[in-house]
Amino acid sequence: MSANNFFGLAEPVRFAGEGSHDPLAFRYYDPQRQVMGRTMEEQLRFAVCYWHSFTWPGGDPFGGATFNRPWMEPGDALQRAREKAEVAFDLFRLLDAPFFTFHDVDVAPEADTLQGSIDNLKSITDLFAQKMEGSKVRLLWGTANLFSHRRYMAGAATNPDPDVFAYACGQVKAAIDATHALKGENYVCWGGREGYETLLNTDMKRELDQLGRFLSMLVDYKHKIGFQGPILIEPKPKEPTKHQYDYDTATVFGFLQKYDLVDDVKLNLEQNHAILAGHSFDHEVKLAYASGLFGSLDINRGDDLLGWDTDQFAMNVSEMTLVFHEMLKHGGFTTGGLNFDAKIRRQSIDPQDLVIAHVASMDACARALLAAERMLADGALEKPLAERYAGWDSAENQAILKGERSLEQVAEHGRTLNPQPRSGGQERLEAVLNRYV
Amino acid sequence: MSANNFFGLAEPVRFAGEGSHDPLAFRYYDPQRQVMGRTMEEQLRFAVCYWHSFTWPGGDPFGGATFNRPWMEPGDALQRAREKAEVAFDLFRLLDAPFFTFHDVDVAPEADTLQGSIDNLKSITDLFAQKMEGSKVRLLWGTANLFSHRRYMAGAATNPDPDVFAYACGQVKAAIDATHALKGENYVCWGGREGYETLLNTDMKRELDQLGRFLSMLVDYKHKIGFQGPILIEPKPKEPTKHQYDYDTATVFGFLQKYDLVDDVKLNLEQNHAILAGHSFDHEVKLAYASGLFGSLDINRGDDLLGWDTDQFAMNVSEMTLVFHEMLKHGGFTTGGLNFDAKIRRQSIDPQDLVIAHVASMDACARALLAAERMLADGALEKPLAERYAGWDSAENQAILKGERSLEQVAEHGRTLNPQPRSGGQERLEAVLNRYV
Amino acid sequence: MSANNFFGLAEPVRFAGEGSHDPLAFRYYDPQRQVMGRTMEEQLRFAVCYWHSFTWPGGDPFGGATFNRPWMEPGDALQRAREKAEVAFDLFRLLDAPFFTFHDVDVAPEADTLQGSIDNLKSITDLFAQKMEGSKVRLLWGTANLFSHRRYMAGAATNPDPDVFAYACGQVKAAIDATHALKGENYVCWGGREGYETLLNTDMKRELDQLGRFLSMLVDYKHKIGFQGPILIEPKPKEPTKHQYDYDTATVFGFLQKYDLVDDVKLNLEQNHAILAGHSFDHEVKLAYASGLFGSLDINRGDDLLGWDTDQFAMNVSEMTLVFHEMLKHGGFTTGGLNFDAKIRRQSIDPQDLVIAHVASMDACARALLAAERMLADGALEKPLAERYAGWDSAENQAILKGERSLEQVAEHGRTLNPQPRSGGQERLEAVLNRYV
Amino acid sequence: MSANNFFGLAEPVRFAGEGSHDPLAFRYYDPQRQVMGRTMEEQLRFAVCYWHSFTWPGGDPFGGATFNRPWMEPGDALQRAREKAEVAFDLFRLLDAPFFTFHDVDVAPEADTLQGSIDNLKSITDLFAQKMEGSKVRLLWGTANLFSHRRYMAGAATNPDPDVFAYACGQVKAAIDATHALKGENYVCWGGREGYETLLNTDMKRELDQLGRFLSMLVDYKHKIGFQGPILIEPKPKEPTKHQYDYDTATVFGFLQKYDLVDDVKLNLEQNHAILAGHSFDHEVKLAYASGLFGSLDINRGDDLLGWDTDQFAMNVSEMTLVFHEMLKHGGFTTGGLNFDAKIRRQSIDPQDLVIAHVASMDACARALLAAERMLADGALEKPLAERYAGWDSAENQAILKGERSLEQVAEHGRTLNPQPRSGGQERLEAVLNRYV
Repeated sequence: MSANNFFGLAEPVRFAGEGSHDPLAFRYYDPQRQVMGRTMEEQLRFAVCYWHSFTWPGGDPFGGATFNRPWMEPGDALQRAREKAEVAFDLFRLLDAPFFTFHDVDVAPEADTLQGSIDNLKSITDLFAQKMEGSKVRLLWGTANLFSHRRYMAGAATNPDPDVFAYACGQVKAAIDATHALKGENYVCWGGREGYETLLNTDMKRELDQLGRFLSMLVDYKHKIGFQGPILIEPKPKEPTKHQYDYDTATVFGFLQKYDLVDDVKLNLEQNHAILAGHSFDHEVKLAYASGLFGSLDINRGDDLLGWDTDQFAMNVSEMTLVFHEMLKHGGFTTGGLNFDAKIRRQSIDPQDLVIAHVASMDACARALLAAERMLADGALEKPLAERYAGWDSAENQAILKGERSLEQVAEHGRTLNPQPRSGGQERLEAVLNRYV
Repeated sequence: MSANNFFGLAEPVRFAGEGSHDPLAFRYYDPQRQVMGRTMEEQLRFAVCYWHSFTWPGGDPFGGATFNRPWMEPGDALQRAREKAEVAFDLFRLLDAPFFTFHDVDVAPEADTLQGSIDNLKSITDLFAQKMEGSKVRLLWGTANLFSHRRYMAGAATNPDPDVFAYACGQVKAAIDATHALKGENYVCWGGREGYETLLNTDMKRELDQLGRFLSMLVDYKHKIGFQGPILIEPKPKEPTKHQYDYDTATVFGFLQKYDLVDDVKLNLEQNHAILAGHSFDHEVKLAYASGLFGSLDINRGDDLLGWDTDQFAMNVSEMTLVFHEMLKHGGFTTGGLNFDAKIRRQSIDPQDLVIAHVASMDACARALLAAERMLADGALEKPLAERYAGWDSAENQAILKGERSLEQVAEHGRTLNPQPRSGGQERLEAVLNRYV
Repeated sequence: MSANNFFGLAEPVRFAGEGSHDPLAFRYYDPQRQVMGRTMEEQLRFAVCYWHSFTWPGGDPFGGATFNRPWMEPGDALQRAREKAEVAFDLFRLLDAPFFTFHDVDVAPEADTLQGSIDNLKSITDLFAQKMEGSKVRLLWGTANLFSHRRYMAGAATNPDPDVFAYACGQVKAAIDATHALKGENYVCWGGREGYETLLNTDMKRELDQLGRFLSMLVDYKHKIGFQGPILIEPKPKEPTKHQYDYDTATVFGFLQKYDLVDDVKLNLEQNHAILAGHSFDHEVKLAYASGLFGSLDINRGDDLLGWDTDQFAMNVSEMTLVFHEMLKHGGFTTGGLNFDAKIRRQSIDPQDLVIAHVASMDACARALLAAERMLADGALEKPLAERYAGWDSAENQAILKGERSLEQVAEHGRTLNPQPRSGGQERLEAVLNRYV
Repeated sequence: MSANNFFGLAEPVRFAGEGSHDPLAFRYYDPQRQVMGRTMEEQLRFAVCYWHSFTWPGGDPFGGATFNRPWMEPGDALQRAREKAEVAFDLFRLLDAPFFTFHDVDVAPEADTLQGSIDNLKSITDLFAQKMEGSKVRLLWGTANLFSHRRYMAGAATNPDPDVFAYACGQVKAAIDATHALKGENYVCWGGREGYETLLNTDMKRELDQLGRFLSMLVDYKHKIGFQGPILIEPKPKEPTKHQYDYDTATVFGFLQKYDLVDDVKLNLEQNHAILAGHSFDHEVKLAYASGLFGSLDINRGDDLLGWDTDQFAMNVSEMTLVFHEMLKHGGFTTGGLNFDAKIRRQSIDPQDLVIAHVASMDACARALLAAERMLADGALEKPLAERYAGWDSAENQAILKGERSLEQVAEHGRTLNPQPRSGGQERLEAVLNRYV
């Protein structure tokens, strides 16, 4: 198997309409179709990720590589990295993907020294810059992998050893520099080992303070170099650690307020991380908007019956409809997008499986976007929602919310009332949702 | 069965020492024994709760009452409430309990109007005041039940109907007034239905704002009447609702910061709620201390394999040792205590089962307290912890934490390093813990 | 509110086609439409259940009744039961439901003696018989409630007290007699408290033997009275008990084999019970067919993020498509059907919420049935499946499966091979499913 | 770091008594101490496992090797395997372990052909045989790894490709031959990928039949070669696959009955697998005894809050006390033992961490064994249990259990009864357990 024409496909995937049975054609994703004032491509802002699609060999905790990609064979590491880049950009082309994303170590080999690793990264990102000139693809975000190497086994910013913290600073500076050089629109931090395995050896308060400091330094640096996009934190509750400090949206909201980072740091939310934390994807998105923290989405899906991150390609149209409904309500993405932090199953060993998975999930997203658009146009959910809370619109009740009434005043009023409950109408609304998807 | 000598026990439960096999004697809980500068009684501050022990009839979602308590039989509701109070105070006496806790509706019947309910509450709390004069028992905290009546089916403070909000204000004002009159040391808010069943009919942002307002009004009122103790929020992630806004410590920390309530509101943490949120009890307690929010504890245990609140009596000595270790490290409880938010199983229908359950759990707590004391005295966990983070004590590394270094400066230093990981020693520490419990 | 025209609807719900926005009309369920050789009505065999829809007052572990149905008001219990029956049959009429289901205690009040309860049951089932003469509705199954009364708190057949076992025999005999009299097509056993709260007080082996005996006696009796339908066991892993003996399909299969009940006892499977046991609904159905145990379905849905039985109305078309695909593959239901073991949310307090919920879920089922039909017609899943296993069709490989080869023989052959894995194509198949739903 | 004196310890770990604070001494495990007619060593039958302790490099799904063992460095694979064996036998010596366990691929490198792999295995097991002559250590069980290599990505016995089935036969024959040659006391099958990732591409019935055939062939072969010990199946519900066919004890019981394997196949139960399936360890053990399937134990512990196999060293004395109580009640192990299917955390990178972890867990087991012995001697749980079921001992009630009474007869009797519930006394029994541990 060669990296040259790895996918065996010459032509990009095309929109063929709902009737198509071709797994290599789009049925709903019609990039130039208008949806609420933008094209579908502009609304969905799809990004292909480097790690799952090009760097993961198919292993799991009980088994080794299954994919046997040619660029993973032994050889000169930088040369292999260049071969990998060829295949990656070929997939971007085939999918007509507007964006991609990467960790530093996904794209370039680590060297014996940090400087050596930085040099390797530079070498590959220079290649990216060159390839991007001849392509429409842009960088949605970059990030540094601060969790795979054994030096990070006890965390990066939250490591008990300040030398590891310093090393992480070196790595993250290089990664945001590279992201900036490639005109990345966001910079992401996933705290893969910023957490603990056991509280017996952990001083949580110290570690949270370290993490706060680390992010503050990064925010200062971002401003210094003129990086316009936000820093995005990606909440995840657990795995690989027993507990990750960026548990979920609510947790990160508390953390950012404490360390005064709310203005500069936003969230990159993921379906699979949401359900591992006990929340629906929709919940995390709505709470992020309510907290002023919405940034971007890792679009994938977990298995509701499994307790680990399966990172499957998102196919659930109903679930995404609700998420896109909220996003469209707020005017759509700004710097964020839909990043496929999704991996084909380790049994999906054919090169085309990678293409088919992206196509199928892009289509599911597009279908959900269209459903969300129709729901918004009809006010299908918005109208009943406004009616349900209409009682709060009166001047007197607004005065309560504005802080112009005391507990005693409202209590006095309350003593005159005998409020009667009103139906929540859940099944009626579930039927409405089913009508649109 | 009569409420008169309901338990069939004349003498209070006594300390009999570790060798005792009597389920109605303490083996570890020796109230006057000194532990780190206070008596055990002062350290543990046990409270008996009214709702599970005297108000719950033994029902569950698939079955009805099993306990058939005499005071639950039909009859004059206020008279029944007085009989219940007799039995409750008899249990306080038998256990020599220093504290008790209650919801308004646990102790007094609801009337057709709010004013009627408030009058009933006053009638019973006057009786309490009278009985407390002849007893050592004090009120750890009071609270209002804003979740059982159908008017609250869609929440109290977060209800879409402002009339329900007002009614809740009336109820909570009466409850804190009663708590204050009885010299309660804290006032608790558990947001039983402050959450949602479905996001399809919920405006989360509005509801969070309502909740923030409600608590702010309560805090203002507390100051006005000179209530000295804190308002305590009790985090719980779900049940009865699908999602409760006070999900866990981290979530509440974010909420309190947003609504500027951090100074006046603290947390009442519960083991069962912790594990339903995906956290260990120890985690919640440590995070509460790290966030300046530790208040009090509901001492019980959930079943690790079940997804609902089983509220069993706490018997796990290892788990509680870690919690009390943290608490003692911070100087012990201030206004808080150990409230038995625990219920005997619905098959434990003998009156003495209620006594035995409290005795067994008080003993498990006492044993854990003694283990924690020994661990602290030996520095069994504290010494290795300090060593693990010792690298951060240098002036240069402190400068990083104080915000006196930029990312570039630390990155520059990081490029010179090749940090080597050090063992986390988890199994060694687990063996240490096992040596103390 | 009166039980007379409780729903405020005169005309039955009609099929109005996909374009309809009326929550009281069917969009997909067109009873007389042909699907694989039967009408939709014959394929789906919908049943309305008595307990959730007419007997549950809207309470949950943290709150009381919300529905305030007129027939739940105080009064003569038998008279109230007759009023309830009027409303129930009115709903059957409005939905044009072909079937209904009930527990003994749902329909008739319990008396002070078993004989009294049996007499009450007879009184109401006589009324049913009379009403069924003027209606199309038939009885899908009946069952006895052996879990709500406090006498059953430690189980019925598995109770440590043989008197409870005997009482349960009396109750179940009356229930199957009533079911037989009403020409019920199945008889169901749900072992609500056949399990344990703690192993500390439980002899699991004894209890399993008791349960085996109980079912054997029931099977003998069924034959004796000429009851043609199967006995159906309804697996559930937990709740109300910590562990229920009928955990899941696989567990019941082991149990039935041990007690030689495989021929007479089949399964009534439920989506919510499946996911509580860690399985997909599809898994349970496929395993039941593979084990020769498929009987009937309780059609509902649980919340993937909650750990208790929420029994929501089934709305997930994809999930049901896979289940109906399997069912149609095996020729459709025989005695079984789709029983709505589903309850409207406790906030859905309007009478019409009950109608709307049924209509929405019937429609989701109908849509899934049509999708399954198309998938089968196209061989969309069946063809790739056959291809995947085609290697086993050779004579030599069939010989292995028939037991005609020894380990050594096959091992000898294996030593000559170097088998190469083939793609599992999961994403391709997920895209196929999305194409049909 | 060299494999020569890898642990830096000359002397075996000794029993030093409860007062010892030395992590390299036993506090409870006194091998020659008598416990119910055997020595502790004979009762506990500890085995050290090869895979976690010597073959796992410390990786997890988000990070690479942390341990950097000398025998994992590049080099001649067979030579490295011999170095590994030296270290392994040194650990057996240091712990005075009576048993060890291994998979074929743990001990010897896989070659390009099956025959080459078998030859490698032979080479190492010959070395084992030689080393065992000079050691007390014996082989508790051997097994074949049929899940790590990519050829097995879709299962071994349950693979859609019969060539993989045949290859697996070759591998398993060699593994049982090696086990037999080393006088292994059991042979284990863990069906790591005998399950599915998605039902969309799976014919569960076919696969179960394949698995039944495979095990039948193995049983026949075992008899043929005179292997005396049982074949042990190790239930696990999920991970690596979405669903594993050997889900739990109950599932395997059904499977073994269907394929007529109950007499020859027993169970190897594991705590972590039990909780992943939703059961307590105690439950699985009790059910295995009740089903006649108890074989051996993998002694470890999972994290109750995590959804994957953490395989931590068992430290929970209470939990193991209940398990050993059941085991002692049945006369203790026959061919089984306590296999440490446990891995040190990936941060425990010091060689002595491996020793300390085993010592700590052996001690926890020993402490649990002593507690169980005392509980049995006192009848602490057995007496109340017998009393609870005493009603069934009457001749009439025994007649029911023997099948000598019909439903009608018992129902007739039941109609005369009004059974009153009796307390389950759960809290009282929990206090009893706490008294012993």
